[in-house]
Amino acid sequence: MSYLTGGKFFVFCMLLEAAFIVIFARLADYGDSARPIQPKVSKVGHVYPSFQDVHVMIFIGFGFLMTFLKRYGYTAVGVNMLIGSFVIQWALIVRGLIRNKVLEGAKFHINVEEMLAADFASGTCLISFGAVLGKTSPLQLLIMALIEVALAQTNKHICEEILHAADAGESMYIHAFGAYFGLAAARVLYRKDAKECEKNGPVYNSDLFSMIGTIFLWMYWPSFNSGSFEGDEQHRAIINTYLSLTACTVVTFAFSGLLHKGKFEMVHVQNATLAGGVAVGTTAHMVLHPWGALLMGLAAGMLSTLGFHFIQPFLLKYLRIHDTCGVNNLHGMPGILAGVAGSIVAALASADVWGNSRFDVFPQMVPPANTTELESLNSNSVTNYTAGLGRSAGEQGAYQIAALGVTLAMAIGSGIFTGLVLKIPIFNEPQEHELFDDHHWWNVPSGIPGDKGETVVDSGEMKIFKKTEESNVF
Amino acid sequence: MSYLTGGKFFVFCMLLEAAFIVIFARLADYGDSARPIQPKVSKVGHVYPSFQDVHVMIFIGFGFLMTFLKRYGYTAVGVNMLIGSFVIQWALIVRGLIRNKVLEGAKFHINVEEMLAADFASGTCLISFGAVLGKTSPLQLLIMALIEVALAQTNKHICEEILHAADAGESMYIHAFGAYFGLAAARVLYRKDAKECEKNGPVYNSDLFSMIGTIFLWMYWPSFNSGSFEGDEQHRAIINTYLSLTACTVVTFAFSGLLHKGKFEMVHVQNATLAGGVAVGTTAHMVLHPWGALLMGLAAGMLSTLGFHFIQPFLLKYLRIHDTCGVNNLHGMPGILAGVAGSIVAALASADVWGNSRFDVFPQMVPPANTTELESLNSNSVTNYTAGLGRSAGEQGAYQIAALGVTLAMAIGSGIFTGLVLKIPIFNEPQEHELFDDHHWWNVPSGIPGDKGETVVDSGEMKIFKKTEESNVF
Amino acid sequence: MSYLTGGKFFVFCMLLEAAFIVIFARLADYGDSARPIQPKVSKVGHVYPSFQDVHVMIFIGFGFLMTFLKRYGYTAVGVNMLIGSFVIQWALIVRGLIRNKVLEGAKFHINVEEMLAADFASGTCLISFGAVLGKTSPLQLLIMALIEVALAQTNKHICEEILHAADAGESMYIHAFGAYFGLAAARVLYRKDAKECEKNGPVYNSDLFSMIGTIFLWMYWPSFNSGSFEGDEQHRAIINTYLSLTACTVVTFAFSGLLHKGKFEMVHVQNATLAGGVAVGTTAHMVLHPWGALLMGLAAGMLSTLGFHFIQPFLLKYLRIHDTCGVNNLHGMPGILAGVAGSIVAALASADVWGNSRFDVFPQMVPPANTTELESLNSNSVTNYTAGLGRSAGEQGAYQIAALGVTLAMAIGSGIFTGLVLKIPIFNEPQEHELFDDHHWWNVPSGIPGDKGETVVDSGEMKIFKKTEESNVF
Repeated sequence: MSYLTGGKFFVFCMLLEAAFIVIFARLADYGDSARPIQPKVSKVGHVYPSFQDVHVMIFIGFGFLMTFLKRYGYTAVGVNMLIGSFVIQWALIVRGLIRNKVLEGAKFHINVEEMLAADFASGTCLISFGAVLGKTSPLQLLIMALIEVALAQTNKHICEEILHAADAGESMYIHAFGAYFGLAAARVLYRKDAKECEKNGPVYNSDLFSMIGTIFLWMYWPSFNSGSFEGDEQHRAIINTYLSLTACTVVTFAFSGLLHKGKFEMVHVQNATLAGGVAVGTTAHMVLHPWGALLMGLAAGMLSTLGFHFIQPFLLKYLRIHDTCGVNNLHGMPGILAGVAGSIVAALASADVWGNSRFDVFPQMVPPANTTELESLNSNSVTNYTAGLGRSAGEQGAYQIAALGVTLAMAIGSGIFTGLVLKIPIFNEPQEHELFDDHHWWNVPSGIPGDKGETVVDSGEMKIFKKTEESNVF
Repeated sequence: MSYLTGGKFFVFCMLLEAAFIVIFARLADYGDSARPIQPKVSKVGHVYPSFQDVHVMIFIGFGFLMTFLKRYGYTAVGVNMLIGSFVIQWALIVRGLIRNKVLEGAKFHINVEEMLAADFASGTCLISFGAVLGKTSPLQLLIMALIEVALAQTNKHICEEILHAADAGESMYIHAFGAYFGLAAARVLYRKDAKECEKNGPVYNSDLFSMIGTIFLWMYWPSFNSGSFEGDEQHRAIINTYLSLTACTVVTFAFSGLLHKGKFEMVHVQNATLAGGVAVGTTAHMVLHPWGALLMGLAAGMLSTLGFHFIQPFLLKYLRIHDTCGVNNLHGMPGILAGVAGSIVAALASADVWGNSRFDVFPQMVPPANTTELESLNSNSVTNYTAGLGRSAGEQGAYQIAALGVTLAMAIGSGIFTGLVLKIPIFNEPQEHELFDDHHWWNVPSGIPGDKGETVVDSGEMKIFKKTEESNVF
Repeated sequence: MSYLTGGKFFVFCMLLEAAFIVIFARLADYGDSARPIQPKVSKVGHVYPSFQDVHVMIFIGFGFLMTFLKRYGYTAVGVNMLIGSFVIQWALIVRGLIRNKVLEGAKFHINVEEMLAADFASGTCLISFGAVLGKTSPLQLLIMALIEVALAQTNKHICEEILHAADAGESMYIHAFGAYFGLAAARVLYRKDAKECEKNGPVYNSDLFSMIGTIFLWMYWPSFNSGSFEGDEQHRAIINTYLSLTACTVVTFAFSGLLHKGKFEMVHVQNATLAGGVAVGTTAHMVLHPWGALLMGLAAGMLSTLGFHFIQPFLLKYLRIHDTCGVNNLHGMPGILAGVAGSIVAALASADVWGNSRFDVFPQMVPPANTTELESLNSNSVTNYTAGLGRSAGEQGAYQIAALGVTLAMAIGSGIFTGLVLKIPIFNEPQEHELFDDHHWWNVPSGIPGDKGETVVDSGEMKIFKKTEESNVF
C-alpha cells in the first residue's frame, strides 16, 4: 500500500459522499408518515421489526459468513460493512430516480419501506462480493457496487413494472442477479495465482466465526421473504420459508455426510443449509402448502450440496470461474430453481384451486377495466380489485420465466462489463502476494492464525543454525 | 468414519424427511390467518417478534453456548442446527397428531403460534443434547430427538389438558424434562474414558464463542417466558423474567468469586446467570411482584453456582452421571425450583389478593357450569369466563406439584429407555478416540486450537534432528 | 487473588442485592398495563421490540466491542454483563426515587418503558467502563457504577425537568456524560505502567470478536435513538440515524485509509463507524431532512477518526488521560457535537419552517396557559396542546446549550470524585501484573492467544539445547 492508494480511495469516497449529500438535498424528503403530521399515527410498527431482521442478515449475516478465510476476516466483515453503507445511500438515489418523475420536480421519499429496499439492494452487491472475495481491492469493490446497483435496480424495475412478474423474496432480482453478476465478473478477473493460493481456505476459528453469519441468515430468512407483505401473504411467506429451511438443513447434512465418508463438510453447513430460503423466495407468499415448502427445501439442499461437490470444481477447471464463496451453489442455482418454481406455480394458479387469492398474488390476472368480468368480480368480493390485464395462469407463468431470463441476461452481461472495468489498473487490482490476505489492506496485529506457527518455526530454525554452528566451534 | 456410516446416516435422514413430507401432504394445512382470506388482517404482528427472539435462543443461543469445548465447536453449533431443524418438523407432526382428531379426517394447522411451539420443542431436545455432548454420534442424537419429542409432547399434553397445570415458560415441560431426560440417558451411556478425556474442556477462544450463546439466551429470555401470552400477563412475564435474570447474574458472580479465591469461573457465568430465567419460568405471568422476581433470581443463581461446584462432581463420582454442559445446574434444579414455586404461588392465589386475575392464570379455578357462583362472577365482570372446575387455590397448588412429579417421572423413565436404545451398535456410539473431537465427524482444517503448537514442535524437532545430524558429519 | 478478595466482593454484592430486594418490596410495583386488568389490552407491543434491540446493544454490543484486548475478553464480556445487571436494578430504584413522591407513600412502577430507561442507564456506565478498561478491579467498577447512576440520573432529571432540553437518543445524558465521567476517573487513576503495558492491544481473533459488538451496535442504533418516541417522530429518528450511520461508515473508511498509507485501522472501523449514531442522537427526532442526517454522519466519522489518530495520543501524552477504548472519540466528542447541533436546530425551529411540529419536539415553545395564543393554537389544531412556557426558538437553543454545559460539568466533577474514591485501597486497584489480563480475575484455561506461541518457542529452544548438547558429546 502507499499514500497514493490511500489518497485515491479517500478522494473517491469523499467525492461520492459529497455527491450523495447534494443529491439528497435536492431530491429527497421524508416519506409521509415520517413528516410532521397531526394526529400522530405510527406507521412504523408493522415493517420495522422485519426491517431490523433483514438489517442483521446484511451486516452480521453476510459479513460473518465471509469470515471463513483464515487471513481475510477483517476484510470480510469490515469491507462488507463499507459496501453495505455505500450501497444503501446509492440505492436510495437510484430507486428514487427510477421510480419518481424527478425531472418534473418530484422528490423521492425515504421511509422504512425504502430502507428495507435499500438493504435488499446491498444484499445483491454482497452476494457478488462473495464471488470475488479475496481477489479484489476495496476500490474495485466500490466501483463494482456503483455499477451493479444501477443495473440490478433497472432489471428489478423492468421485471416488476413491465413484465409484472412476482418475486416475493426477490430470489431472481437479488440472489440470481447477484450470483451471476459476480460470477461473470469473477470469470473476467480469473487468474491462475488466485486459484492456487494456499491462503484461500479456513482455519478452525474462522469457520466458527462464519457460522455466526450462517445462523443469523438462516433464522431471519422468513423476515427477508415476507418483509414486503402483510396479512395472510406475509404469514404464508413466513411459514413456507421456515419449513423450507428446516428440510434443507436436514438434507444438506445427509448429503454432506454421504459425500465424505460420514464426515460433514463445514462449507456445506455454512452455505447449503441456506439454499432453502433462496429456493422458496419467489413463491414464498403463494399457496405452496406446507409439504410444498418442505419439498422445495429438500430440492434446494440437495442441489446446493451437490453443487459444491461437483459443479464448483467443474466451473473452475473448465470455465475458469473461481467462485470464492460458492455463490453459485447458495444463490445462483437455487435462485434459478426459485424462478422456475414461480413460473410453474403461476401456471397452475387456476381459479378453482386459488379462488380470488390469485388476484392478490398476480394482480395482472384481474380482468381488464370496463369489463363485465371485473364488475362481477368486484360485486362478489369484499375487496375492490383494480383492473389488471386479465392474464391467464399460463400467461403469467410465461411472464415469470421471461423475468428469469431477462434477469440472467442482464446479470451476466453487466457482470462481464464490470469485470472489464475493474481490470483498469487505476483501481488497484491486488498483486499476487495481496490475495486473500488482510495484511495488505489493514494494519494487522500479531496473532493472525498461521503466523504464530510460522514465526516460531522460523525463529526455531534460526536458533538451530546458531546453536549448531556454535556446537561446531569445537 | 466410513462410507457405511455416511450411507446409514443418509438413508435415515432422507427416509424420515420423505416421511415428514408425506405426512404434511396428508395431514397439514396453513392456519386460518395464513390462508387466502378477505379482507386482509395481519395476525402475525403480535407473536412474530417474540417467535424470532426464541428462534435466536434456539439456534444461536444453544448452538454457541455449547461451543465451549476446545475441539468440538463444529458439532456444537452445526449439529445443534441439524437437531433443531429435524425436531421442528417432527414436533409439528407430533403436536398435530396429539391435539387434533386426525383419525376423523381433521388436518392440523401451521401458523406462527405453532412455529413457536415447535421451537420450544427443539429447545427440550437441545437441553438433553447438552448432557450427552461429546459422547454421542449425530445418528444417536437424531434417534434421541425422535423419541424425546414424542414423550415430551405427551407429557406436556397430560399436564396441560388433564392436570390443568400452569407453566408459563414451560420450565417444567421443557427445562426439567429436557435436563432429566438427558441426564438419565447420560447415566446409561456412562463410560470411564469420557469422564477422563482431556479434550473435555475449553480454551480461551472457545469460551468467548460460548458467551455469544449465553448472552443471546439471557437477553431474549423474557420473550421465551412471555411469548404465549398477551396483555398484562405478557407484560408481567417480561418484567419478572428481566428482573430475575439481573439478580441471578449479580449473585452468580458473587458466589463464583467466593468459591475460587476471588477469581470468576467462566462456566458459572456461561450457565448459572441464566438459571434466573428458568426458575421464574413457571410463575412468570403470575403476580409475583418485582421483589418476588428478584428473590427468585437470587435463589436460582445461588442454587446453580453451588450446583456446579458441589453437586455436579458428586453426581459424577457417586452416581456416574457425566453431565457435559452441567444441564442439571442450569435447567434441572432451577426447573424443579420453578415447579415448586408455581405450586406455592398457586396455593396462595386467594380471591382477596388476586381478585379475578386468578381466573386468567388458573382457568380451572373458575366456578363450574350452571352454578350461581359462575353467574354472579360473569354478571359482575366485563369478561365472560367459561366454566371451570371451581378448584380452590390449594387444589390448584396440588395439581401444580403433580405436574412436576409426572414430568420428572416421564423424563427419567424415557431417558433411561432412550439411553438403552442408543447403545444399540447400529447407531455408532463413538469410540474412545472419537470423544469430544470434531476430527472424527467433520473435515477439519488445520489451525484447531492445540494442534498448531504440536505441529510446530514436531516440525521443529524434525529440523533439529536433521540439523544436528549434519552438524555431526564433522 | 485471595479468599479475602472473593469474600469482600461476595459481601458487597449480596448486601446490595438484599438491599435492592427490600427496596423493591417496599417501593416498587408493576406499571398499570402489567397489573391484572379487565378487559385485556396489550400495551407491550409498541415498545418491546425497540427495547429488545437496545438490550442487545447493551449486552452484546458493548460487551463484545470491548473484547478487542488480547488477554481481557472474559472481563470485557463477562463483567460487562455483571455491571449491566447491577445497574439495571439500581437505576430502576434511583429513577423511582427521583421521579416519584416515595416519601409521601407513592410507589414507583416497573414497565417496559422503565426497562428501556434502565438499559439506557447501564449504557452510561458501560461507556465509562470503556475508559478504564483493564485498569480497574470488578469491585471498583461496581462502586463506580453505584455512584455514576445516581449522578447521571440526577443530571438527566435536571436537564429534562428544569431546563426542558430535548435529547432524543440521550447523546448528552448518556454518551457525553458517560465518556467524560469515565475520562475524568481515568485521569485520576492514571499510572505509567498501564500506559506502557504491552498487553494493552489486540490480536487477530480478538478484533473479530470485537466486530460482533460493533455491528450489533451499528444495526440497532436506530432503535436506540427512536425507542422513546412514536408516530412521525419515531419514524424520523429511525431514518435520520440509519442515514447518519451509513455516511459515517464510508467517511471513516476514507479517513482511516488516508491516515495509514491505504491500510485501514481496525480500531477506527470498530468505533468511528458508530459516531454517526451518537452525533445524530440529540436531533434524531427533529426535521433534519435526509441530507442533514448524512451531513451529521460525515462530520462524526471525520471527527472520530481524526480523534483516534491525533487527539487520543495528545490526551495521553499531555493530559495523562489513558483512554483504553477511545471513548472520547466514539462517545465524547460526537456527544458534544450532538448537543451543539441540537442547540442550533432548536434555534432555527421557526414557526414558518416547522409549523406546529415544533411544539411536539419542544413542548415549552407552546404558549403559556390562559393566553390567547394558546387558545387560538388549540382551536386551529386537531391536537390539544398543554400550556408551555412560550419559549422562542432562540431561547430553546440557549437551554439546549445550557443542558450540554451542565452535563459536562456534572460528568467531569463526579468523575474526578469517583476516581478518588476508587483509589481507596480497600477496593483492590489492580497491581501492575494484573493490568489488562484475565488471568488474575478468572480461572483461565490454556490456549490464551500468545501463550501457546511462547510455550512452543520455549519447548523448541529447550529441545534445541538438549539436542545440540548431545551433538557435542562427540
